[in-house]
Amino acid sequence: MKPFLPTPLLSPLAGIALNNLRRVVAPRVFPVRSFTAFAPSAPRIYAFAKYTSKKKQPNMTTMATTLKGEPLDKAALESLLRRRMFYTPSFEIYGGVAGLYDYGPPGCALQANIIDIWRKHFILEEDMLEVDCTVLTPHDVLKTSGHVDKFADWMCKDPKNGEILRADHFVEDVLEARLKGDKEARGQKVEEKEEDPKRKKKKSKGHEALKLDDAVVKEYEEVLAQIDNYNGEQLGELIKKYDLRNPATGEQPSPPVAFNLMFQTSIGPSSNLRGYLRPETAQGQFLNFAKLLEFNTGQMPFASASIGKSYRNEISPRAGLLRVREFLMAEIEHFVDPEGHKKHHRFHEVEHIELELLDRHTQLSGQTKTKRVSIGQAVRDGTVDNETLGYFLARIHLFLKKIGIDQNKIRFRQHMANEMAHYACDCWDAELLTSSGWVECVGCADRSAYDLSVHAKKTGAPLIVRQRLDEPKVIEEWEIELERKKFGPFFKKDGRAVEAAIMATTQGERGKLAKELEENGKVVINVPGVGDGKVEVSKDLLAIKWQKRVENIREYTPNVIEPSFGIGRILYSLIEHNYWTRASEGGDEARGVLSFPPAVAPTKVLIVPLSSNKDFTPTVRKLSQKLRSAGISSRVDDSSASIGKRYSRNDELGTPFGVTVDFQTIKDGTVTLRERDSTRQVRAEEDEIINAIRALVEGTKTWQDIESELPLFEGQDVDLTLR
Amino acid sequence: MKPFLPTPLLSPLAGIALNNLRRVVAPRVFPVRSFTAFAPSAPRIYAFAKYTSKKKQPNMTTMATTLKGEPLDKAALESLLRRRMFYTPSFEIYGGVAGLYDYGPPGCALQANIIDIWRKHFILEEDMLEVDCTVLTPHDVLKTSGHVDKFADWMCKDPKNGEILRADHFVEDVLEARLKGDKEARGQKVEEKEEDPKRKKKKSKGHEALKLDDAVVKEYEEVLAQIDNYNGEQLGELIKKYDLRNPATGEQPSPPVAFNLMFQTSIGPSSNLRGYLRPETAQGQFLNFAKLLEFNTGQMPFASASIGKSYRNEISPRAGLLRVREFLMAEIEHFVDPEGHKKHHRFHEVEHIELELLDRHTQLSGQTKTKRVSIGQAVRDGTVDNETLGYFLARIHLFLKKIGIDQNKIRFRQHMANEMAHYACDCWDAELLTSSGWVECVGCADRSAYDLSVHAKKTGAPLIVRQRLDEPKVIEEWEIELERKKFGPFFKKDGRAVEAAIMATTQGERGKLAKELEENGKVVINVPGVGDGKVEVSKDLLAIKWQKRVENIREYTPNVIEPSFGIGRILYSLIEHNYWTRASEGGDEARGVLSFPPAVAPTKVLIVPLSSNKDFTPTVRKLSQKLRSAGISSRVDDSSASIGKRYSRNDELGTPFGVTVDFQTIKDGTVTLRERDSTRQVRAEEDEIINAIRALVEGTKTWQDIESELPLFEGQDVDLTLR
Repeated sequence: MKPFLPTPLLSPLAGIALNNLRRVVAPRVFPVRSFTAFAPSAPRIYAFAKYTSKKKQPNMTTMATTLKGEPLDKAALESLLRRRMFYTPSFEIYGGVAGLYDYGPPGCALQANIIDIWRKHFILEEDMLEVDCTVLTPHDVLKTSGHVDKFADWMCKDPKNGEILRADHFVEDVLEARLKGDKEARGQKVEEKEEDPKRKKKKSKGHEALKLDDAVVKEYEEVLAQIDNYNGEQLGELIKKYDLRNPATGEQPSPPVAFNLMFQTSIGPSSNLRGYLRPETAQGQFLNFAKLLEFNTGQMPFASASIGKSYRNEISPRAGLLRVREFLMAEIEHFVDPEGHKKHHRFHEVEHIELELLDRHTQLSGQTKTKRVSIGQAVRDGTVDNETLGYFLARIHLFLKKIGIDQNKIRFRQHMANEMAHYACDCWDAELLTSSGWVECVGCADRSAYDLSVHAKKTGAPLIVRQRLDEPKVIEEWEIELERKKFGPFFKKDGRAVEAAIMATTQGERGKLAKELEENGKVVINVPGVGDGKVEVSKDLLAIKWQKRVENIREYTPNVIEPSFGIGRILYSLIEHNYWTRASEGGDEARGVLSFPPAVAPTKVLIVPLSSNKDFTPTVRKLSQKLRSAGISSRVDDSSASIGKRYSRNDELGTPFGVTVDFQTIKDGTVTLRERDSTRQVRAEEDEIINAIRALVEGTKTWQDIESELPLFEGQDVDLTLR
Repeated sequence: MKPFLPTPLLSPLAGIALNNLRRVVAPRVFPVRSFTAFAPSAPRIYAFAKYTSKKKQPNMTTMATTLKGEPLDKAALESLLRRRMFYTPSFEIYGGVAGLYDYGPPGCALQANIIDIWRKHFILEEDMLEVDCTVLTPHDVLKTSGHVDKFADWMCKDPKNGEILRADHFVEDVLEARLKGDKEARGQKVEEKEEDPKRKKKKSKGHEALKLDDAVVKEYEEVLAQIDNYNGEQLGELIKKYDLRNPATGEQPSPPVAFNLMFQTSIGPSSNLRGYLRPETAQGQFLNFAKLLEFNTGQMPFASASIGKSYRNEISPRAGLLRVREFLMAEIEHFVDPEGHKKHHRFHEVEHIELELLDRHTQLSGQTKTKRVSIGQAVRDGTVDNETLGYFLARIHLFLKKIGIDQNKIRFRQHMANEMAHYACDCWDAELLTSSGWVECVGCADRSAYDLSVHAKKTGAPLIVRQRLDEPKVIEEWEIELERKKFGPFFKKDGRAVEAAIMATTQGERGKLAKELEENGKVVINVPGVGDGKVEVSKDLLAIKWQKRVENIREYTPNVIEPSFGIGRILYSLIEHNYWTRASEGGDEARGVLSFPPAVAPTKVLIVPLSSNKDFTPTVRKLSQKLRSAGISSRVDDSSASIGKRYSRNDELGTPFGVTVDFQTIKDGTVTLRERDSTRQVRAEEDEIINAIRALVEGTKTWQDIESELPLFEGQDVDLTLR
């Protein structure tokens, strides 16, 4: 019936399970780190992990919630982010370019703080070797790594309006529209998804309430279940078979062609040296492996790490910061001996940590329920393959927790067999729940020895570890010795063929031959093409001896465990997770708050003089200066707005603390300190307040501690001024 | 004699002075920030500032000194940098790519620390608005900014071996070789320069001891003095006129053609959107000006800042980190009202700071002697144009001092008239003295309103400030009122011409016309092409009144003061400035030391257990953990080398402090703390030592303070173990 479809990787039953799964679990957003499923045996056109995965999350709008558990008003949040310049489309005054965004001051500070914590949490904590490699990469490197041939998506073109469509997205969109029309015709409830309005509008054109045959529905669902497995030709055949047409024009698009996702350029003046912008930071780390190992005085295991921009020329980027063409990555390459079960010497420090795991077996059975288990248990029972992988999953979890990701909106999802490259023994994604569904924000994969091996093979560079064995390894085996002086002259032109046949014998065969030689004084060897195919070799030409050999050095290519972070996606998820409005407290609905933890907040302190009275100026200036000296970022708002309004404006920026300078300050040098989330205040001398802020920002004290140490201030609730 | 030469910008006398200057002052290395001389009126091919400047420093080898003032052994330093992986050629196992370098762990940490200090010193201190804009930039933006047309160098090709030469470098090299040959033939001493060995070898081929006519010598010197002023055609004519040949082949290269220095690529799948990798971060900041102004609640002045990679496709990069194709920049765009003499409200904080200034007048008189003056004095006497520029020069100086740049190897050199774009009223470079001469590491230019103006004109976006005037501005002037109902019918087809002629009158003319109208009841207007060119207009068609108008808003385009930092150049200079060897103390010559200040050092503490005795392990682990919690980077060296050797190895990495754990530690919990530069040690309890380290790293205490507080340890001078 569908002769062109690939051999299903799953049983028909599993196919149906997956089909259910498709509509309820996986993110519609592409993974940051998608290299994990890229393997030499993958189809020529590289379909990396969930790169082609467009599985959708129903009812996202109702699922997305604020920090306080209320439904998320995404339009209000987006208005806030635009208004306060967290990020903005690049080159907007020139009309903008899809998939490119600039970070404004709060976004930029948020990003810098996330990176700072990342660097301390991973690099400093683990003595990782940070490197900063170039983005510009010559062709040969990415040819070897496989990106030149395989890092591509399939695209097709509308013959009428020239619109370029990503083939798999197109097939999926049209089939889903038909299924939706069928449901409507049957009077069933249709799930609504939150997505790009332009896209929605376009799709609605192609969506009519038209009942389909039951068999057709089943066929469409089966196609959608394995949409990730089709290559370009197969997608083209699906388009023809089902007569899929672009809703915008009513035309069938052209057959899909490969579109490599790397940005290409030329290096140097002669234009001979083709180059690309790297699609990941990993390759630079692999190429420096030998130097890094030497820097680490030859000791294994060790990790390198890199923070930098990478580039992917998406065919049609949407979804804001979640899918962009230029993005900041933070990647770790942990090099480990493949022998010894990839133990980790600090695993005991994290084994008690509990994670929400969604393993592959659960997914294959059509379930999406996560299991909350300790990482120690997960490694013991084999859910997570090894300690090193488990260690990093726990460390990733701790990092996300530290920066303020909602603990109820993290899960670790294991790749299924058809998502994962053949060399990977295990692969998990940290997914964060947002208004766009579960978004892969961190990938944690075992890349095995693949990269080091291909680069070593191509260049001849020894990307290996030479380990001096504590105990020399004694090897005993059958060895062949030829009496060359006689052997050649005896066999003449057949000499090489006979020798090759002898040398090709296995240890088992040699054992038998040795016995035969001892017993008969000769052996008979099969040498196809020489005489009748059987050749006698006597013991004056040949000896077969049981030999002992001692090896002092073991050479091996390390395996790589790679935690890979998409900083932009984490940043966006962090914003959503920390957003809420005072509406839930009976206040003004428009009063958005971003409850970032102090360490990650773009600015730590807002300084608010009660009025524009010049008497406050020296105090404000001194306060700013003291905070600066303490390395704490602050901003002064001396506008004429009420104090409540000024605090409220700043809640939108996520500033955790506010200091008010009033007439009392001039008398006794005390100021008030306001905490953003509770809006509660304490009052104390300036230096005490600065110490309190420092402790709060460094995380050595909580607001509760401060409230218990310093007198509460209730005389003048600044927030009342707004209500 | 040289009809194709451009009109000299300087008098003949000044030309000779410059000629002397060329050989003694300016750096042979290209500036990081070269945009300052780029102006719309510049030659079509953009020769930016010293981009084409190849003025050389004689006897650099003897001039370059270590931190201790001894001659610098550059080969030894380079060996150290390679061995300890400060940086390394990118893609080395694939043969490398010129102008691309990867930073290894110490280089990467050094870079991160420089950036961290930069961010605190400028962004935090001044409440600057940091943005992070994309590197990918569409064609239109860089077309408007002028980069597409003008950001180019001239290159020519050797017809025999295909070698590509930068035309100005080629002309300069060959003429200099001839002058050198002439000097040798005259038996004069020839100055030796330190440079790329490949280049040197190539040049020596073309260099024969051949005496030239005095007139020829003079002519060559005049050409070299103005080498920056030639365009491609002129360089081509010089090549023909003097029959300049590539020493490698003996051939005359092809006529120069323009080579744009931007890396080009295509954005999106249709390849229609041409794009470039940005050559500077500035444009992204300019395009966001309106949003940034709004973010700053409309208040002026303010500054934006950006730290990020930029790209220049150099024709033939050499000189290591000093001239690369991918580099990290940190740029500030300070937006200021062009009225009011560009005062700066914090200028009083820096006015006492003394700088080494090399002003343009000194240079034009052929001198290179800097003047040490306070920036307050320099602004008062007009050497530095305005307070804002002066403020930033002082702040740049303080930053360079803070990170550990040698105070005797900084100067601020003013651009001369022919280096500077016409819109710049002043421009100064912070130059650092290295083994490659004076290297421009920071540029500080006044870009005027150029960029905002051209982008506003192109896009129609209002890149302006609307200032509410404190006192409304009253404008009184002559205004024309036409009696339109009668005017049109009266003049019929000539109406428009007559009206245009009337409206084109100046205020002065209108005053006279008003008087004429009052006296004669009519006026005579010159209207070419209408009748005899004179037209009578009577007072029933026209009134001319003295009118009063009130303006409440003033609109203006801000000017931009731009301090722009080349981080890689600063980093390399910092390494050279802090390098010395213990040789000067009678120790082993090979014992290199990098005396970075603690705040900037890649790693702060080396932890050294006395031996590999397992009893030390818990203490070492606890110590590492405590330092980590305090945010202080440390590394453990538990190798079997002697303590002296281990410290010595670490001196090469610039680690300022060492902590030794020995048997006494196990008894009483005390450890020793060693200071890198003096190799002196104190001994105290672990926590006291950690507090001391923290104070040293934060800069609140000096080593002298620590020595006065904690008991000196002399029982076991670890350095003796090496001597």
